[in-house]
Amino acid sequence: MSNYDALIARLAEINYLAQAGAVLGWDHQCYMPSGGAQARAESLAVISKIAHEMSVADETKRLLEGAEAEISGVDLDDDRALTLRVVRRNYDKAAKLPTSLVAAISRETAIGHETWVHAREKSDWSLFAPTVERLLDLSRQVADCLGHTGNRYDALLDQYEPGMKTADVARVFGELRPGLVALVKDIAAAPPVSDDILRRDFDEAGQLAFGEKVIRRLGFDFTRGRQDRAVHPFCTSFGRNDVRITTRFDKNWLPMALMGTIHETGHALYEQGFDPKDDATPLSGATSLGFHESQSRLWENIVGRSRAFWNVFYPDLQAQFPGTLDDVDVDTFYRAINRVDPSLIRVEADEVTYCLHIMLRFEMEQAMISGDLAVADVPAAWNEKMRDYLGITPPNDAEGCLQDVHWSGASFGYFPTYAIGTILSAQLFEKAVAEKPAIPVELAAGEFAGLLDWLREKVHRPGQRYQPAELVQRICGEPAQSHSYLKYLNEKFRDVYQIS
Amino acid sequence: MSNYDALIARLAEINYLAQAGAVLGWDHQCYMPSGGAQARAESLAVISKIAHEMSVADETKRLLEGAEAEISGVDLDDDRALTLRVVRRNYDKAAKLPTSLVAAISRETAIGHETWVHAREKSDWSLFAPTVERLLDLSRQVADCLGHTGNRYDALLDQYEPGMKTADVARVFGELRPGLVALVKDIAAAPPVSDDILRRDFDEAGQLAFGEKVIRRLGFDFTRGRQDRAVHPFCTSFGRNDVRITTRFDKNWLPMALMGTIHETGHALYEQGFDPKDDATPLSGATSLGFHESQSRLWENIVGRSRAFWNVFYPDLQAQFPGTLDDVDVDTFYRAINRVDPSLIRVEADEVTYCLHIMLRFEMEQAMISGDLAVADVPAAWNEKMRDYLGITPPNDAEGCLQDVHWSGASFGYFPTYAIGTILSAQLFEKAVAEKPAIPVELAAGEFAGLLDWLREKVHRPGQRYQPAELVQRICGEPAQSHSYLKYLNEKFRDVYQIS
Repeated sequence: MSNYDALIARLAEINYLAQAGAVLGWDHQCYMPSGGAQARAESLAVISKIAHEMSVADETKRLLEGAEAEISGVDLDDDRALTLRVVRRNYDKAAKLPTSLVAAISRETAIGHETWVHAREKSDWSLFAPTVERLLDLSRQVADCLGHTGNRYDALLDQYEPGMKTADVARVFGELRPGLVALVKDIAAAPPVSDDILRRDFDEAGQLAFGEKVIRRLGFDFTRGRQDRAVHPFCTSFGRNDVRITTRFDKNWLPMALMGTIHETGHALYEQGFDPKDDATPLSGATSLGFHESQSRLWENIVGRSRAFWNVFYPDLQAQFPGTLDDVDVDTFYRAINRVDPSLIRVEADEVTYCLHIMLRFEMEQAMISGDLAVADVPAAWNEKMRDYLGITPPNDAEGCLQDVHWSGASFGYFPTYAIGTILSAQLFEKAVAEKPAIPVELAAGEFAGLLDWLREKVHRPGQRYQPAELVQRICGEPAQSHSYLKYLNEKFRDVYQIS
Repeated sequence: MSNYDALIARLAEINYLAQAGAVLGWDHQCYMPSGGAQARAESLAVISKIAHEMSVADETKRLLEGAEAEISGVDLDDDRALTLRVVRRNYDKAAKLPTSLVAAISRETAIGHETWVHAREKSDWSLFAPTVERLLDLSRQVADCLGHTGNRYDALLDQYEPGMKTADVARVFGELRPGLVALVKDIAAAPPVSDDILRRDFDEAGQLAFGEKVIRRLGFDFTRGRQDRAVHPFCTSFGRNDVRITTRFDKNWLPMALMGTIHETGHALYEQGFDPKDDATPLSGATSLGFHESQSRLWENIVGRSRAFWNVFYPDLQAQFPGTLDDVDVDTFYRAINRVDPSLIRVEADEVTYCLHIMLRFEMEQAMISGDLAVADVPAAWNEKMRDYLGITPPNDAEGCLQDVHWSGASFGYFPTYAIGTILSAQLFEKAVAEKPAIPVELAAGEFAGLLDWLREKVHRPGQRYQPAELVQRICGEPAQSHSYLKYLNEKFRDVYQIS
């Protein structure tokens, strides 16, 4: 057996082990009784430890070097070369982090999560601040181990969006911000849109049935996936053929389950769409969190909150909840589900204001990592930026700087991927329509296969062959840019709000 | 750290890895979409492989030998000595089996299961026979690797019932058989009992609700376990604090879900009842499959099919299904749920005939392993024994020698544990009542804690400290015997069938 084949076999084992860990995580969120928590943490820790040890073992290094020698000289477009590039990158990252640092982060984040929950309950940043201090320090060590050219935030960002620099994000956000602020201002000046009709009584069984019908139509393959209830919606997968999403329900807030389900389905379609020939190889998988989010946002917002979509599905929705929406026409419903309202909580933000929440966090995180912003000063800085960006002031820390779970997991550098994915969703959709002009017509007829096929070919099947910046360039012939997203928002929301 | 402590830490890791495998198995049965099967098999194979490698690694051997040296001279009742006895036994067994043999069995049983399903569908033993031939050959190799004193079946049986010999089983069955045959004959001569009332309409939601209510009363701790639907009922656990049972429903056959649920709860109470101080150590766990089955049979039959039990629960059952059982008094119901009827299928057998099904298999397996019975002759031999033991002839292989899954998994030697557990259930219950005479009074009042506490102390908390024969002796002051079971059956069923 060649070194290359032996390496791939070894990595497949690690991959299947990681899949086992993902099953345990899914069960933890969906079905595990409370008593199981401690043993579950131990099982997950053992799996992580073994997977990490196998990843950085001398044998892995030997096989990787041998495989690199075997294929030296082949074209970089050769799948083997692309595979080894991914493996080398992952190996170097894993090998650069000392086991002691990984263990320290694991310990601190396990405690950190509990501390964050408690601090948020008490709405008191000072209870969480010492943890943040330690996690920032550990994250700076991570950045230094991974390496950077002066800006530690580059190294952190690179963990989630390979190859993307802080300056790239700043450029995109710099283009995006003035347009968003102007649109928010215009919407604020327009007659308000009400979403009261979305707060009527929608029984959970009906919401579940309608959601499943919708995502089946979008292309979610229930023979290779399933949907369950969980406290937090998420998508996880154990290979391309077992992709699971979760949903939560609010009887009196229709969008929570429905739009959440479509969002997670966007993630799931990506996971179900990797190339079968890449199964269990390093090429199977999302190229970045930003690309992942581009798929969820595209299906949730560009498709799922479109007028065409509701022209198709609104009669079904009315039939699903007899008597509930008889007095509401589709235009009123469409406007309600696209209501714009600057609000405190990121995860509840509308399409127009969402990225402003991310910009705030991006700026805060850079200042926290560099040390320019003292941890004790985070609440004041947060609130000032909220006033600046969204014109509102959080009444307390729980609804301000304590709202997100990410910092308790030391995930500094993660937030920007949400906004990158958001702007990518519009850039990709624009390109899809340019290449396949029938797509809007098909969507208006409730046919989603044309769009899905395009995404399968351009985004899903390439898997991890290309880094995100390369993939955007290959698909769109240009780098990630925010013009498409601003154009999409302006066209849509000037219509929704009847701004001339 | 001492060798002993290092060994225990290492075995805990293997244990947590095995728990992860059990979670994957549970999910496979309960929730996995069909597409996930292949990747799931790979994940399970990797976990098994790593766990096996860790179990027989030089490091494990070194630590075990070091630990044995450290504690040499301590009393055998010392928990460390009892722990090392379990570890040594498991290590020797695992180390004796060559990896190539384990892999061959793994491959053959994976294919074997499909072949068996197909052969059973076609009701054609000859389709399954070549597989059985190979699995018998592999099982003989296993027996020879594990070691025996002339009878290979001893070595196979020992895998499931440590320390028990073929001759022990034969002795117990020899005592049991004439009594069973006599009772079956007397019942056949008595006026028949009908179970038609159990075939009325019982909606699934009502069955689920009633079953959960019952097992909660019995002591199943839902904070440390849960119940789900599955094609086959089973109990699995991921440590003492996450024990899961499954149930299947037949709208027109009440006992399937209800008595199955109580049966699995018996297994679950054992798993939830191990000593907390033994968590993740080799002492936590069932001492044998026979003891496991004694717990399920005790709760299902001795408790759950007793007159006292139904005097308590029957009004609740009637209320759960309004109008369905209004015309049926508790005595009629009690007799129906204890109907005796020699039948073809083991898993549907009543308390009186059940062990006859096992004796048949025990005798068949010995002859198959020794080679005295050719694989091609299995159907004829099976049918002859069915006529001899139960007075009925299977009309086809599907309802005869193809009915059980066990041989497709090379589980020769497993069946006897069902009968050993059955007779133990009566022996243990008799001893419990002798030591705590209040138990029958408590059961008649619907109080189960007294019985459960006794089982916790005598059976559950000892875990794997004692081999099954030692544990029976410690608890009952005598070896396993069938008199108690025969006495229980005669008293109960001569009353049910009003035989003077």
